[in-house]
Amino acid sequence: MSEHIPTEEEKKSKLIEYRNSIDNIDAAVINMLAERFKITQKVGHYKAKYGLPASDKAREATQIERLRKLSEEAQLDPDFSVKFLDFIIEEVIQHHKKISGADK
Amino acid sequence: MSEHIPTEEEKKSKLIEYRNSIDNIDAAVINMLAERFKITQKVGHYKAKYGLPASDKAREATQIERLRKLSEEAQLDPDFSVKFLDFIIEEVIQHHKKISGADK
Repeated sequence: MSEHIPTEEEKKSKLIEYRNSIDNIDAAVINMLAERFKITQKVGHYKAKYGLPASDKAREATQIERLRKLSEEAQLDPDFSVKFLDFIIEEVIQHHKKISGADK
Repeated sequence: MSEHIPTEEEKKSKLIEYRNSIDNIDAAVINMLAERFKITQKVGHYKAKYGLPASDKAREATQIERLRKLSEEAQLDPDFSVKFLDFIIEEVIQHHKKISGADK
């Protein structure tokens, strides 16, 4: 049996189907990250208020370990997840710098 | 009325409360990204199979515009979201390169 070769119209429609799913996921991720930064902002203010250290290497090590495990379960490249966490933490540090400046 | 100064124990417990929420959000985001990459892998194979161009500048422009709007609604810095999308797309491109190599 020969394989059906999709028409240009069918290819377009297949890509749109995939893209709609990607867009739904991106909307969910953006909303979750917004919520995550709300919490890290609170953490930043709390730490600044009570003079707690801005970074916590032990906490970061625990997060990395946990994300690696979660990624393996989700069949996601654990190295990517660590890069992703670094990317997010970099942003959090920028926020915290602004907070500790503004709270002074 | 004087403000209650939290004890060391209370500070620790407050940080744990925040961190538990952050960890829950991270788990959700990791699982969603795993799902997102599953779809982009399918897109990669589909494009490689039918010789469709790997990147689509018009699609990327639409995604950026959409993410900016979503971010504003979620009170997230739109510039961060664009950086985030770039970060994800960079990873997708790496996956697609592997696919187009492997599918040959």
